[in-house]
Amino acid sequence: MAELLIKRLCIVGVGLIGGSLARALREAGVVTEIIGTGRNIENLKKAVALGVIDSYEEDLARAVKGADVVVVAVPLGAMEAVFKTIAPHLDEHAILTDVGSAKGSVVKAAENAFGSLPVNLVPGHPIAGTEQSGVEASFAELYNERRIIITPTSVSDAQAIARVRAMWEACGAEVVEMNVEHHDEVLAATSHLPHMLAYTLVDTLARMDDSQEIFDYAAGGFRDFTRIASSDPQMWNDICLANHDALVVMLERFSADLKDLSNAVQRNDGDYLKEMFTRAKQARDAFCNK
Amino acid sequence: MAELLIKRLCIVGVGLIGGSLARALREAGVVTEIIGTGRNIENLKKAVALGVIDSYEEDLARAVKGADVVVVAVPLGAMEAVFKTIAPHLDEHAILTDVGSAKGSVVKAAENAFGSLPVNLVPGHPIAGTEQSGVEASFAELYNERRIIITPTSVSDAQAIARVRAMWEACGAEVVEMNVEHHDEVLAATSHLPHMLAYTLVDTLARMDDSQEIFDYAAGGFRDFTRIASSDPQMWNDICLANHDALVVMLERFSADLKDLSNAVQRNDGDYLKEMFTRAKQARDAFCNK
Repeated sequence: MAELLIKRLCIVGVGLIGGSLARALREAGVVTEIIGTGRNIENLKKAVALGVIDSYEEDLARAVKGADVVVVAVPLGAMEAVFKTIAPHLDEHAILTDVGSAKGSVVKAAENAFGSLPVNLVPGHPIAGTEQSGVEASFAELYNERRIIITPTSVSDAQAIARVRAMWEACGAEVVEMNVEHHDEVLAATSHLPHMLAYTLVDTLARMDDSQEIFDYAAGGFRDFTRIASSDPQMWNDICLANHDALVVMLERFSADLKDLSNAVQRNDGDYLKEMFTRAKQARDAFCNK
Repeated sequence: MAELLIKRLCIVGVGLIGGSLARALREAGVVTEIIGTGRNIENLKKAVALGVIDSYEEDLARAVKGADVVVVAVPLGAMEAVFKTIAPHLDEHAILTDVGSAKGSVVKAAENAFGSLPVNLVPGHPIAGTEQSGVEASFAELYNERRIIITPTSVSDAQAIARVRAMWEACGAEVVEMNVEHHDEVLAATSHLPHMLAYTLVDTLARMDDSQEIFDYAAGGFRDFTRIASSDPQMWNDICLANHDALVVMLERFSADLKDLSNAVQRNDGDYLKEMFTRAKQARDAFCNK
């Protein structure tokens, strides 16, 4: 772990994800100094008060100066603007990573901002989080035994990859590598599509005439099913726009399958229903009992 | 509670729902004798061994004889056959209720079986359950502080309604009355539609080429979201067929809304997305913080 030691870590966007990373790295004793930056000064002051960061710097360009590792933990929609602002000010050897839920858009944003892909850029995505947001919700154990997907680009430097990997491993996470396109397809399937379904279901019901009564009779299963519809709307707007292509494919695939099911219900096709429910239950039980 | 005392309770189908009712009524001290009946003798023997019922009777017609309360807790698809078998053998004053997740089909089954609706029939539906099934999974607290919807018919006798209400209240439940059609609409929205979405999502993903890897990267949100896809396929087949009309309406409504969302994603309409996600989050948070 000795070679990991981060002298000056700059976290751009000190919320649940950035804040938890700061806490975990500090607890692991692998970072000397943590500078926070972001648009919300009150939030940065809170992060200092909570001991999550050592200090904050309002000016993004100044914040990244002298940092050996820069983690960009801002919404996907703000990624390119952040890259553009920091590009001229990053140290030559500074390692740059992010925590965005879609990776193709981050790579494109970096290309646009830097002119060409920086060799020290190693995009990443922690498969962790809660429905909470903000630095108050951050905690050091968030990444413990969770998966982090890193998606090195074709030009990512081997040492930079190793450093980003070691950073997340110091937080107790399991790090896996995936290519950018595959990451975006997998996440569209397991996370982005389910969020679209949960948001749509709640909205469909909320717009019904007797919505209040309908929600009154919703039981525990409904609560679990719709939990993800309490996630941050701005973040999910950004994810939809950023992972547009893969999400559209999954929405179309799901809609076609739901249409098939609706048709089976319509024609009272018990054979179809039993077979499909059984197949789904088996897949779900197998996935959950691992 | 004195007037509730059930002298001889007959439970047709001693599984999670019927077994938990037996346990709760016994614990409340409001029942003298509990007879179980059903198709699976091994299960009935287990129910006796577990102390859930006092004895079992293989023959359905004999089982209901002399019972002052008969609770039919069989799958919706078996309801009419059970009603037909017991119709000639029920005591004149015996109260008849059920626990089916759809109510229109139960009323129709009773009409078919009895010739006309019995005045002592008070259909019911406990909004409680787990993804488990079988008498081993039953427990006395299942209905504690849960809602029970009873749907008296136009001919239901006032005293019969009061007895069924008192029975569930003795289990710690809150009993509400609703008309049959409204029950079926509310349940289609809050339970039947979400189950269809969870089953379809899991099946859509399971049939993808890289399904194993896709499930590997599914995080906690996905697990919660798909929990209900582990429910019993036969039971859900029955529910789809039984609540056909209301479910078809909800499937169409949801599909139209999902299509609108897909179109918004397709054209990168951030205004639409943010507005919809915000509306859904507010509805969900309001519903959950009650």
